[in-house]
Amino acid sequence: MASLLRLPSLLVPAAARPAALLRHRGRCLHTSPARLFPAATTAGASSAAPVKMETRGGDREGQVTPRSTDFNAWYTDVIAAAELADYGPVRGTMVIRPYGYAIWEAIQDYLNVKFKETGHSNMYFPQFIPYSFIEKEASHVQGFSPELAVVTIGGGKELEEKLVVRPTSETIVNHMFTKWIQSYRDLPLMINQWANVTRWEMRTKPFIRTLEFLWQEGHTAHATLEEAEKEAMQMIDVYTKFAYEQAAIPVIPGRKSRVETFAGADRTYTIEAMMGDKKALQAGTSHNLGQNFSRAFETQFMDENGQLEHVWQTSWAISTRFVGGIIMTHGDDAGLMLPPRIAPIQVVIVPIWKKGDEKGVVMEAVASVQNTLKEAGIRVKVDDSELRTPGWKFNFYEMKGVPIRIELGPRDVKNRSVVLSRRDVPGKQGKEFGISMEPSILVDHIKGRLEEIQASLLQKAITFRDSNIVDVNSYGELKEVISEGKWARGPWSASDADELKVKEETSATIRCFPFDQPEGAKKCFMTGNPADEVAIFAKSY
Amino acid sequence: MASLLRLPSLLVPAAARPAALLRHRGRCLHTSPARLFPAATTAGASSAAPVKMETRGGDREGQVTPRSTDFNAWYTDVIAAAELADYGPVRGTMVIRPYGYAIWEAIQDYLNVKFKETGHSNMYFPQFIPYSFIEKEASHVQGFSPELAVVTIGGGKELEEKLVVRPTSETIVNHMFTKWIQSYRDLPLMINQWANVTRWEMRTKPFIRTLEFLWQEGHTAHATLEEAEKEAMQMIDVYTKFAYEQAAIPVIPGRKSRVETFAGADRTYTIEAMMGDKKALQAGTSHNLGQNFSRAFETQFMDENGQLEHVWQTSWAISTRFVGGIIMTHGDDAGLMLPPRIAPIQVVIVPIWKKGDEKGVVMEAVASVQNTLKEAGIRVKVDDSELRTPGWKFNFYEMKGVPIRIELGPRDVKNRSVVLSRRDVPGKQGKEFGISMEPSILVDHIKGRLEEIQASLLQKAITFRDSNIVDVNSYGELKEVISEGKWARGPWSASDADELKVKEETSATIRCFPFDQPEGAKKCFMTGNPADEVAIFAKSY
Repeated sequence: MASLLRLPSLLVPAAARPAALLRHRGRCLHTSPARLFPAATTAGASSAAPVKMETRGGDREGQVTPRSTDFNAWYTDVIAAAELADYGPVRGTMVIRPYGYAIWEAIQDYLNVKFKETGHSNMYFPQFIPYSFIEKEASHVQGFSPELAVVTIGGGKELEEKLVVRPTSETIVNHMFTKWIQSYRDLPLMINQWANVTRWEMRTKPFIRTLEFLWQEGHTAHATLEEAEKEAMQMIDVYTKFAYEQAAIPVIPGRKSRVETFAGADRTYTIEAMMGDKKALQAGTSHNLGQNFSRAFETQFMDENGQLEHVWQTSWAISTRFVGGIIMTHGDDAGLMLPPRIAPIQVVIVPIWKKGDEKGVVMEAVASVQNTLKEAGIRVKVDDSELRTPGWKFNFYEMKGVPIRIELGPRDVKNRSVVLSRRDVPGKQGKEFGISMEPSILVDHIKGRLEEIQASLLQKAITFRDSNIVDVNSYGELKEVISEGKWARGPWSASDADELKVKEETSATIRCFPFDQPEGAKKCFMTGNPADEVAIFAKSY
Repeated sequence: MASLLRLPSLLVPAAARPAALLRHRGRCLHTSPARLFPAATTAGASSAAPVKMETRGGDREGQVTPRSTDFNAWYTDVIAAAELADYGPVRGTMVIRPYGYAIWEAIQDYLNVKFKETGHSNMYFPQFIPYSFIEKEASHVQGFSPELAVVTIGGGKELEEKLVVRPTSETIVNHMFTKWIQSYRDLPLMINQWANVTRWEMRTKPFIRTLEFLWQEGHTAHATLEEAEKEAMQMIDVYTKFAYEQAAIPVIPGRKSRVETFAGADRTYTIEAMMGDKKALQAGTSHNLGQNFSRAFETQFMDENGQLEHVWQTSWAISTRFVGGIIMTHGDDAGLMLPPRIAPIQVVIVPIWKKGDEKGVVMEAVASVQNTLKEAGIRVKVDDSELRTPGWKFNFYEMKGVPIRIELGPRDVKNRSVVLSRRDVPGKQGKEFGISMEPSILVDHIKGRLEEIQASLLQKAITFRDSNIVDVNSYGELKEVISEGKWARGPWSASDADELKVKEETSATIRCFPFDQPEGAKKCFMTGNPADEVAIFAKSY
C-alpha cells in the first residue's frame, strides 16, 4: 500500500498509538486523544503524555485512505490530515482552519481585484431578512423555503415577524435597490458582498455542502435585458478564467437547463468541474434574473423618455465549496496538491543536519535562501522544528500540497546549492540536485518551476477531463457511460419531464449546455427530434 | 447659516424640491421620492421625473444639520448624504454602502497585516452556537443572554437544541481549542476571524450600535498567565497605534474597571476616543480571559513536566463601530473629513470647462494627472460627469471628506499647473494655485500635503481632547465637569457600588484607568482613601 511505504519514522513507538487515532471518519474529523484519555484523570496523565504530544499534525498524515480505495474517505482524511477544516459542534457546520482559510483568502484576493476592475463595489447587507420578503418571488420561495434557518426569538422575546438567516440576498438587495434606484442615471448599479450564508442542508460534506458557508454574491441592476445578459456572461467568464488560470481547474462553462436554473432566475450560467472521482461539481454560477425580483419588489427606474421601467438584474456567486473542488481535482494518495498560484505556501524549506556543529551553517544558509525567495515575492516557509525528523516533514508538507520542497544540508551548504522536490512529480523524477543558491539563479529557477507545476496541473486535469467525457447518441449509450461514472455529452431538445426521468433512472443531471458547441445538424438522443445543442449529463456533488 | 452658503447651484429649481426631501431623520435615512410619488401612478410620472433624477447624492449634501445645532442629527445626516450607510428592513440593522464599506476595508487592510505580523492566522468558526455553550461560563451568560438572537427552526422543523447566533465566539472557540490543544507544544495558539456578530440591542445607531455588525475577533491560548497578559497588552497596543497613525484618533488606552470588564474576562483593556460632542466611544477592547473559559470548556494542555493545566487566554476586537468613531471625531458642518491614510479617495479631480472646444484639452490633462497620481500609489478619482456642475461636485466631495481636491480648467492647462484645495482648511486659506503638473513635483507636493493633513487632523483631535479632560479632586468637581459634557480624571479607589452610584447620578462611567498615570501619592476623590490610580469618567456611546 503506497501510503504505508510513505510512513515516516515516528517519534512515538507504534504500540503507543491506539488504532482509534489512525482512522477518523464520520462525526468527528479530528478524534481527540483527550477524549480517549479524559483530562480529569490526572493519575493517568504521564502515561498518556506521549500520545498527546503528537496531535498537532500528528502521525496521521501518512495514513489517509488511498484515493482509489474510497474517494470520500480519502477526501475527509485529507481535510483532517492537512488541517484544512474540522467539524463544528452543530450538525453540518464546519470550522475552517488556518490552512484551509488561507486557500479561501487566495481565492478572495484574486476575485476581489477582478470584481473591482469590472466596476463593482463591495458593500454589506444585513443577514436577517423578514420572512415576508422570501415569499415575494414565487419560484424563489419554493426553492429556498425547505432550507431556511429561522430566528424567532430576539432579546428574550418572541419576534412579531420571524427572520430568515439569509440563504442568499436577492430579496433584501432588491428591497434596498428599490430605495436607491430612481432614474436611468442610477444605473447600472453593480455591487458585491463577501458574507456567510445559511442553508439547512440534510446531507452535508466539508466545504462542499455545509449548513453555513462563506461566499461572495454579486448583485447588479441594469436598464436593459441586453446589459444584464452581458454582465451575467462577463462574470461567468471571470469565474472561468479564475478556475483555469489560478486553480488549474478546467471547468466547462455553460447554461443550465430550465430544471436546474436558480430559483428566481431566467437563465443560470455555470462552471462545471470534474472531480477526481469523475463526479461533477458546480463550482460557480451567474444568473440573469430578468425582471423577476424587480417586479416582486417594484424596483423601477425612469428611463430617458420618462417611462417607468423595472430594472434588469443579475447575481453571481462563488463559495468556499471551491476549496473542496481544488482538493478533489488535484489531490492524490499523498494528500493535497495545490496549484502554486493559490498555494498559501509555495516553497517549504527543510533544514537537514545531524551533528550540533552542522546546525549553525545550515540554518544560516536556510535563512539566506528564505530571504532571497521572500524578497522575490515567493511565499516561503521554513520548518526548523527539532521535534520532527526531516522525513516526517517531507510527508507533512506533501500532505499539505506545497508545490516545491527545498532540502538543505551541510553538503549543500558546502556546494552552495540546494535540493528541490516537486510535489506533482513523485519520487526521484521530481528531484533536482545541485541547484545553485546564487539568488538570481535560484529565484529564476524556482519561479520557472512554479509556472511549470501550475501548467502541468492544469494539463493533467484537462487530459483527465477529456478522457472521461463521452459523446452519446442514444439513451442507452448515455446509461452505459453514466454507469461507468463518466460524463455523457449528447444532443438534447427533450422535455423537462424527460430530463427528470434521466435523473431518476441514472442519477445523472444535465450539468450544462456548454458554450462550446459542436457544429452541424444534431438530433436529440432521447426523442430523435432536431436539437440545437448538446448537453452534458453527469452525476454530481 | 454656513451650510446654506455652501449650497451649490442645483439642476432642479428649489420649488420642485419637496421640503420632506431636505430632512430625513428617524426611521429612514434615505427618504425615497418613490415613496412620495408612488411608482404605480404612471400618470404622474413625467412631473415626478425631475425630482427622481437628483436622488443619487441628490441635493441633500449641502443640507445636513449643523453639527453645533444637533450632533446626533448631524451624524445621521452625514451618513445619508455621504452615502455611508442606510437602514435595513429589520429594526436596528444597517446596510453598509460602498463608500462606508471602503472605509471598513481600509481598516481591515491595515489590521489584517498587523495581525499576521504578530503571529496570528485567520480562520472561520460557525456562527451558530448551541445554547448550552453560552451557559457554561457564568458571567458570560449573564452578560450576553439578554442580547441573543435565537434560531429555533431549521429546515422547516423545530430544533431540538436552540441555536444562538454568535454575539461573540469565546464559547465555540474554546470548544474547538479543547479538541486541538493537547500539549504545551500546541501553544501558543493564535487566531483571528473577520465575521458578523449579532446582539439584540434595544437602542441602535448606525455604525455605533446595530443588531448585526462586522468585526474581527482575535482568540489566543497560552501556557502561562504572563504570556496571555503580554498578548492582551500587545493587541491593545496594535489598536492604539492604528487609531493614532491611521485614523488620526488620539485614543486613551487603559484598563476597564471591574464593573465595566467584559463578561468572562479577568481584565479588559480598552481604547477610549473622544467624539466631537465630547462623549466617549469605546473603540476597541482586548481581554485577558484568564482561565475562565478554559475551565468552563476543559481546555487543557500537558505542560513540560507532564502536568495537566488549563490554558490562559485572550480575546480582542475592533468593529464597524470604528467607522462611526471616524465620522464623529473629524467631521464638520460640511460633512465627513477623512484622514488620508484611510480615505477611499485621497484626491478627487474636478475638470472645469465651459465651451465644447475646451473639453478635449482639459480632459487630456485630467487623464494625465490621474495617471501620474495613480502610478504614485495615490487613490485618485476623476468626476467627469456632465450632469453636475463643478460647484455641486466641490460640495459633494467635501461631504464625502476627500482630503484633497484638484481643479483643472483651460487656463490651468495653459500654465501646466493645477489648483489644490484641502478639505481640512476651509475657504481660500486651504487653496493653492499654480501647482506644477510636472509629475515629480506634483506627486511630491500632494504626498506632502496628505501627510500634513493626516498630522493636522491628529493634532486638532489631540488639542480638542486635552482641552476637554479636567482633573477633579472631589465628587462635586466631577459632577460639574460631567454636567459640562467634559471628561473628568481623578484618583479612584472606591467600591463598585460607588462607581454605580456615580453612573446613576451623573450618567458617567469609568471609561478606563489610563496606562498613562500621574506620579505621586493620590487620594480617592470619592472616599479620601489612598488611591493607586486615576480613572477617567465620561458619558459614552
